[in-house]
Amino acid sequence: MREKWPDLAGRIEGETHVLPVRVYFEDTDCAGVVYHANFLKFCERGRSDFIRLLGIEHQGLANPDEGEPSVFVVRHIEIDYLKPGRMDDVLEIVTTCAEIGSASLVLQQDVRRDGTLIARAKVSVVLVSRAGKPQRLGAIIRGALQRFVNQARET
Amino acid sequence: MREKWPDLAGRIEGETHVLPVRVYFEDTDCAGVVYHANFLKFCERGRSDFIRLLGIEHQGLANPDEGEPSVFVVRHIEIDYLKPGRMDDVLEIVTTCAEIGSASLVLQQDVRRDGTLIARAKVSVVLVSRAGKPQRLGAIIRGALQRFVNQARET
Amino acid sequence: MREKWPDLAGRIEGETHVLPVRVYFEDTDCAGVVYHANFLKFCERGRSDFIRLLGIEHQGLANPDEGEPSVFVVRHIEIDYLKPGRMDDVLEIVTTCAEIGSASLVLQQDVRRDGTLIARAKVSVVLVSRAGKPQRLGAIIRGALQRFVNQARET
Amino acid sequence: MREKWPDLAGRIEGETHVLPVRVYFEDTDCAGVVYHANFLKFCERGRSDFIRLLGIEHQGLANPDEGEPSVFVVRHIEIDYLKPGRMDDVLEIVTTCAEIGSASLVLQQDVRRDGTLIARAKVSVVLVSRAGKPQRLGAIIRGALQRFVNQARET
Repeated sequence: MREKWPDLAGRIEGETHVLPVRVYFEDTDCAGVVYHANFLKFCERGRSDFIRLLGIEHQGLANPDEGEPSVFVVRHIEIDYLKPGRMDDVLEIVTTCAEIGSASLVLQQDVRRDGTLIARAKVSVVLVSRAGKPQRLGAIIRGALQRFVNQARET
Repeated sequence: MREKWPDLAGRIEGETHVLPVRVYFEDTDCAGVVYHANFLKFCERGRSDFIRLLGIEHQGLANPDEGEPSVFVVRHIEIDYLKPGRMDDVLEIVTTCAEIGSASLVLQQDVRRDGTLIARAKVSVVLVSRAGKPQRLGAIIRGALQRFVNQARET
Repeated sequence: MREKWPDLAGRIEGETHVLPVRVYFEDTDCAGVVYHANFLKFCERGRSDFIRLLGIEHQGLANPDEGEPSVFVVRHIEIDYLKPGRMDDVLEIVTTCAEIGSASLVLQQDVRRDGTLIARAKVSVVLVSRAGKPQRLGAIIRGALQRFVNQARET
Repeated sequence: MREKWPDLAGRIEGETHVLPVRVYFEDTDCAGVVYHANFLKFCERGRSDFIRLLGIEHQGLANPDEGEPSVFVVRHIEIDYLKPGRMDDVLEIVTTCAEIGSASLVLQQDVRRDGTLIARAKVSVVLVSRAGKPQRLGAIIRGALQRFVNQARET
């Protein structure tokens, strides 16, 4: 389907991944704005599609010889809500990699609308096996993320 | 925790199960009312707690000798939305069993507010194994549901 | 943003609207499949983007002279779940207009994966004012939807 | 409905508010655990019911003479995820007030299961008018929250 819907997983732009997210009724609440928890969903979509565009499958997150099927779980989030999101908005989730640890990543994720920052999150994720045991990040993902890290440090 | 929060799973009242559901911000949308898909969530909470109060564990849904771990999946829903739900409402999800099939159930689920019907759903669920194969309903759940069926037929 | 993300609202293809929807973690449940209520969210995204691509603003749903700001609310849904959706799937929400009433529409919405039907919904919506009063559909939306109706009738 | 479902909004216990939250299918994801963003929903339910049990209506959040209808919006969240939540769990959302500002509150919210801490959040909310302008907290809510603050400071 990649060819039919070319930008469905967003795009790598320079040293960032950018995913457009449309705001639908489901995302808003009766205060007329995007419900705060839904920004975390948008960020998770961004992370999923960032890894997808790097060409890394779920089974490729750990090294193949060490390789249990693994999944990233969220350990810590800090998020600032700066401006409200609204129905019909097109938001952009801009993701960079702030840190690569042994079994973990720290991602910085900005939510923008027409270039204006409306929320900023720092998300720490850990790679764990199905049983919940931390797994060392494989060489492939480590290599693929390397060039995004320096950028984030400089910013 | 049953003792500490005695009505957390609702109550069997006569031939029905009744679960109270509070409407929070997360349930509403920017039109100021409960988002329509969330009524299906409320109904699923009602079904889960109905089975819980019947004392049936997930592993007890099929017969123990035939017994693969099984789960109910939804096959068909018809739902009428009659009145809007609103922030802070206390809704009651009133569930009866309309039909017991070999591997399936049909449940009627009313959403009420202060006795007024605001939505009515008919939900067909099928018991399937992890691999998706339909499983015959076990004797225990069949027996436990029997008395709720006749009632629904008469209504 | 239309130019930057050209297919964000899907596409009109022949007599249908098609919206691609990626399945993310948020959409799935612990049974390993897309949670049934989330198909209604996907369908609502399809309806929103269908109307968006027809070039109709929310304020343009009623006739301008009669024109209170109006919104479509869901009155009735019938949905068949045929196959499970799964993490990372690209689903397509295919929407046609089955009926145009005075203040209402009936839409048929298919959820497909690689051409295979996995769910089919018939959704009745009514145009209402903020106060909840039904509003006659404006000439613009009526005209724009006309060519999608015949198609649905023939199918 | 308060009498019919006495603990629906949880309980004040000592210097904290405690809300039980059942984990349903809708809350989990295909990794088999509670989806991380849903903990923010649970915390928001806790905050809503805390204020409800204090007897404060939405229109009573600001002072009546200054009084525009106001709502709390989230400005900042820090959350640590310590252990996974699972299907059928009964979680308890334990809320205390860490700080009372002029137009803002900082709440500490623990998610516990059988006394074990599984997530801990610090949530800053600001009272704003419909137009988004910060509003001074009214005397009533300020008074009602006072005794919860000291406790949190000591912990």
